[in-house]
Amino acid sequence: MIKRLEEATGAALYDALFRPRSVGLVGLSSDQRRPTGRVLEYLRRAGYGGAVHVVNPRHDEVQGARSYASLRDLPEVPEHVYVLLGTHLAAEAVATCAEIGVKVVTVLADGFAEAGAEGARRQNVMVETARSAGMRLLGPNSMGLADLHSGAWITVNAIYAEPDQLAGRAVLISQSGSLMGGLISRARALGLGFSKSVGVGNEADLSVGEIGLLCVDDPDTDVFLLFLETIRDAGRLAEFAATAQAAGKPVVAYKLGRSGVGQHLAVAHTGALLADDAVVDAYLRDVGIARVCTLDGLIEAAILFAGRRPLGKKVPVVGVITTTGGGGAAVCDRLALAGAQIEPASEATLEAIRATGLNVVRAPMTDLTLAGAGPQFVLPALEAMARDPKFDVVVSVSGSSARSAVAETMRPLIEADKCGKPFGAFLTPEAADGLRMLIEARVPAFRTPESCADAIGALLRWRAPRAAIAPLPSAPEQGVVIDERASLALLEGLGMPVVPSVEIEITEAGGTALPFPYPVAAKVLSDAVPHKTEAGGVVIGVDGSEALAAAAVAIARRVAGTHPGVTVARLLVQPMVQGLQEVLLGYRRDPQVGPVVTLAPGGVLVGLYNDKAVRLAPVDEATAAEMIEEVVGLAPLRGYRGLPKGDLAALARAVAAFSRLAEHRDVLEADANPVLVLRDGVVTIDALIVKEE
Amino acid sequence: MIKRLEEATGAALYDALFRPRSVGLVGLSSDQRRPTGRVLEYLRRAGYGGAVHVVNPRHDEVQGARSYASLRDLPEVPEHVYVLLGTHLAAEAVATCAEIGVKVVTVLADGFAEAGAEGARRQNVMVETARSAGMRLLGPNSMGLADLHSGAWITVNAIYAEPDQLAGRAVLISQSGSLMGGLISRARALGLGFSKSVGVGNEADLSVGEIGLLCVDDPDTDVFLLFLETIRDAGRLAEFAATAQAAGKPVVAYKLGRSGVGQHLAVAHTGALLADDAVVDAYLRDVGIARVCTLDGLIEAAILFAGRRPLGKKVPVVGVITTTGGGGAAVCDRLALAGAQIEPASEATLEAIRATGLNVVRAPMTDLTLAGAGPQFVLPALEAMARDPKFDVVVSVSGSSARSAVAETMRPLIEADKCGKPFGAFLTPEAADGLRMLIEARVPAFRTPESCADAIGALLRWRAPRAAIAPLPSAPEQGVVIDERASLALLEGLGMPVVPSVEIEITEAGGTALPFPYPVAAKVLSDAVPHKTEAGGVVIGVDGSEALAAAAVAIARRVAGTHPGVTVARLLVQPMVQGLQEVLLGYRRDPQVGPVVTLAPGGVLVGLYNDKAVRLAPVDEATAAEMIEEVVGLAPLRGYRGLPKGDLAALARAVAAFSRLAEHRDVLEADANPVLVLRDGVVTIDALIVKEE
Repeated sequence: MIKRLEEATGAALYDALFRPRSVGLVGLSSDQRRPTGRVLEYLRRAGYGGAVHVVNPRHDEVQGARSYASLRDLPEVPEHVYVLLGTHLAAEAVATCAEIGVKVVTVLADGFAEAGAEGARRQNVMVETARSAGMRLLGPNSMGLADLHSGAWITVNAIYAEPDQLAGRAVLISQSGSLMGGLISRARALGLGFSKSVGVGNEADLSVGEIGLLCVDDPDTDVFLLFLETIRDAGRLAEFAATAQAAGKPVVAYKLGRSGVGQHLAVAHTGALLADDAVVDAYLRDVGIARVCTLDGLIEAAILFAGRRPLGKKVPVVGVITTTGGGGAAVCDRLALAGAQIEPASEATLEAIRATGLNVVRAPMTDLTLAGAGPQFVLPALEAMARDPKFDVVVSVSGSSARSAVAETMRPLIEADKCGKPFGAFLTPEAADGLRMLIEARVPAFRTPESCADAIGALLRWRAPRAAIAPLPSAPEQGVVIDERASLALLEGLGMPVVPSVEIEITEAGGTALPFPYPVAAKVLSDAVPHKTEAGGVVIGVDGSEALAAAAVAIARRVAGTHPGVTVARLLVQPMVQGLQEVLLGYRRDPQVGPVVTLAPGGVLVGLYNDKAVRLAPVDEATAAEMIEEVVGLAPLRGYRGLPKGDLAALARAVAAFSRLAEHRDVLEADANPVLVLRDGVVTIDALIVKEE
Repeated sequence: MIKRLEEATGAALYDALFRPRSVGLVGLSSDQRRPTGRVLEYLRRAGYGGAVHVVNPRHDEVQGARSYASLRDLPEVPEHVYVLLGTHLAAEAVATCAEIGVKVVTVLADGFAEAGAEGARRQNVMVETARSAGMRLLGPNSMGLADLHSGAWITVNAIYAEPDQLAGRAVLISQSGSLMGGLISRARALGLGFSKSVGVGNEADLSVGEIGLLCVDDPDTDVFLLFLETIRDAGRLAEFAATAQAAGKPVVAYKLGRSGVGQHLAVAHTGALLADDAVVDAYLRDVGIARVCTLDGLIEAAILFAGRRPLGKKVPVVGVITTTGGGGAAVCDRLALAGAQIEPASEATLEAIRATGLNVVRAPMTDLTLAGAGPQFVLPALEAMARDPKFDVVVSVSGSSARSAVAETMRPLIEADKCGKPFGAFLTPEAADGLRMLIEARVPAFRTPESCADAIGALLRWRAPRAAIAPLPSAPEQGVVIDERASLALLEGLGMPVVPSVEIEITEAGGTALPFPYPVAAKVLSDAVPHKTEAGGVVIGVDGSEALAAAAVAIARRVAGTHPGVTVARLLVQPMVQGLQEVLLGYRRDPQVGPVVTLAPGGVLVGLYNDKAVRLAPVDEATAAEMIEEVVGLAPLRGYRGLPKGDLAALARAVAAFSRLAEHRDVLEADANPVLVLRDGVVTIDALIVKEE
């Protein structure tokens, strides 16, 4: 008989996860060298203060602790149980946990959703068992979690076997258990610790977003670092990002799958869905998560982002100051590739530096070496740069003295960081001591020019969450096509300008009076023929009623050939419109992140250059205008090479209107292609919409 | 009276640079903390066996060594003198060196070419003084050189003040003195040493290429690493790269200036010329230098490249094997972004691994974790991968055991590397001991997924030098335009198909019989009007003799308006030709690297996407075909979306013919734009050539 608990939420759930009064270890091995034998030792070393209960029917005692034959035999019901058994026994243990009233269970075993359809079914049953009892589940396929402040190291991760753990102020949440140890060890080498590390495994119940939400108020946490292979609960993750940002606690993510192969592997590894990286990128930006692209950058972002809010400027400006030419140039080169706008210091700043006796010249980077700077000149110069209102971020590059005179070289960097402006330091030589000194003082410091540019680029691109983001539930895989006329009407209803069109019977094509002059375009009108051009269903430049009759016959004959069995009865006739440039608008309910809208140039080269702007839908006109600016191939409309400018305000209105498809919950997918941009206005020429059945 | 030495070349020059019998230090400071006070101590610590002579007129003794008032007072003429004085005194000292018969002088001072026109003049005088005496010069602005095997540490670089120098098998040549210490310290932290380090400074005389050539036969050297800010002696650098590759000693370069800001800084810092990075990239590839894009990648490339030749396959295939899902996926993702073709192991390889008892599945990466691999399974699996003929390169990714069980985890990697196939290892956690163990055993090992992908990507892209590369001397800045007819004739002479055209007098336009039917295009013909369309000098679709007469009048009127003072007398008339797609061919004598040829799609969007292929000119048809394949926007000609295919063989012939402009030493610049690609053949419609005056 399963008793229904009041489900733990908020603070109670947080406590059960990260500082439970008692922990149960089911299946603890007596062999400490095995992953399943590690947890007890970890809890002891961490000084965990609660009760630990071991369940292992094969022994009376395991690693010096009394061992019980079953969860039911324990002297109390543990708040948090870590199940260390294999797939099938684990599922049984979870059921027992649910029965006896455990609050949170963490499951190590794999063999669930990541292992195919049968595993997915097994996982669903297990989660259903847990949830129906009001119990929450971390995993399966989870290496567990560690709270460095409470001592709850409920994890099998090998990294915690090491003696020198370092508590810090960042929460690490990872979909990859194995990479977690890599990140923790790399961070520790820099002197960076975590407040918590959580391996979410398959996220069958507790997701990255929900775990993050639980930790937003944690006083030991300033910033969140995520290692993501996929996006599983986009709505909750967005809610977490917004809540965390409001609390002044940034969320930074490394997301696998920037390449096709990477996407494929993330999918194979986790059983998740394949996604277009541009969609993931749009999602992360729109929900207010900063994205880095290097592992070092993820770690080093912890201090750079802590306590920051998005810069809130369209084109933030970076100032670079250096005591070494080559190292400074290497950083600038990378920063510029990461999209940074690097500018010379203002004349007032240069004057302030010159007043100390250094003859610096105006240049993209303020180079103190050329001016022969001794260490006494560095701090005033750094402070002048940090106070320059022109700069949103200041980067300092140090040369060999970062190695040969560590303390003297780090001191001005530590002082300058107190100016409050986002500030980063790159040390050109190998300078582990210097890096540690900076990080100890909570100065953002970077090991390579590449990670420096990566983390700072992420800060520059980081945005506040956009207001209206409410991902829809996943779309069904199949839908029904609606015909062009209905599609155009739906878009017109949203406020998009559409080309006038009349529907005529094919048999009456020659005799119908049209409400607009020739020449016209004639297109087959049938929801059974979504791809009209390929079907031979379009004739353009029809210049009179006879030609229209002939076009109708030709279309009927050709479509009959390409679509045997489809009866074509109607044509859509439209005036020919001349525009400056064609664009393409796309909408879909992405299975991972929900409704997204895409803008791209039209024409035959669409797709070749992957030149598009993507946002979560709906967007307002300001966001639409930003999308238009992002698309390189729309330069002609901006007057490139003296070409006539298009009506980009009208295009922004049209993009915003189109994106309101997100309010039609039954629309799965839509294309407006082409939308013609004119000198004055825009007009939608063709559209195709797929709805739920 | 200057005596003319027989100039030291080859072995003699090598000895004078890297193992001189005697060294002179001019201007050695008595303060060892100053850069100019370091060298003597370095030479002593290095155990340099030759005589060291100190010149400093202010002291009789400096740092325990007898100090002479002048170079002329020394008991012997030093083979190699390092001048540590400031700009003006340094130039005087160089003159004295030249007079007394020094073989090589290295100059520390700045204030030469990098400091503007006056400095450049000063540098020219100094070099002329040296060369006319048969003396060679390293620098100015050079931090000197160190030979780790001979003990000749003739350098002020602070890195050599450290006790634990490490001799290795790579030569480091750097245009940035300050970055050299950064690279040496970072390499040493990995256990990687150098055989020599050379700071070339301004390369006023001895260039990167010449120094490299001198070292190709050095038995202590396997590989060359270059840190470049610019390309100064492109011919010699190409000769070095080819000679080194023939000797089995690869050359790998990090070149600043991938971004516009980076280019600007490299220029400001060195007084060098601004270059298009695509041109630099083409140059490096064509001369056989592998290019990396990260500092760590440059260092870590040393072992990966040592003893290798270019893979010689158009699309090399990479196999990835991992004991950790997340780390493996992070590497694959980056490798794919770096252009690697990652493929699953062949069935035979998977079978061989399965035969050891591991149930691996076919996937882009061979994942031993999913199969539950213990360490005993790793070596057979690695060897099976390394023996798979499908793979040109194998990358192995290790998980937490690289930290927790270092020796057991590194042993199979060291064994597998013996299979001879290019092999690289990434260790996911922070694993300094493991990295050092691998590097000690000369196994290519990488600290980050990004540097791993960078170095391996560079290996995949690395090519043998192309046969015919002989950079022309720098082009003069100014040239003269030759008119379209002469330009087309010149290109036709090279073998390019050009459109038929007739030249007519404007006044006789209506009455001239044309050798081809209407419609035609009429264009102003004048070397004073290079940009005909902008000048109003083109009318297309002229459909008869009357229209031609009218077009002539209109052209004359419009050009008179846009080009006052220019008398327009002639028209060029051509038939209208319909093609499938327009392309653009460009040729120029780049000031840094010599003749280059560029292929890009034509039309209004040219340049927006930076979509082009660049090579040193001339190219053969095979190379031209490779260029065509590289250009994304030529996909329509390849049949993209079912479009009719263009005659790409004819285009390749045309590109090769066009590139033979390099044989016309008086041609500075040329555009063939557009060249129309047809189903059958190509035809050049317009051209503009600039020649030397």
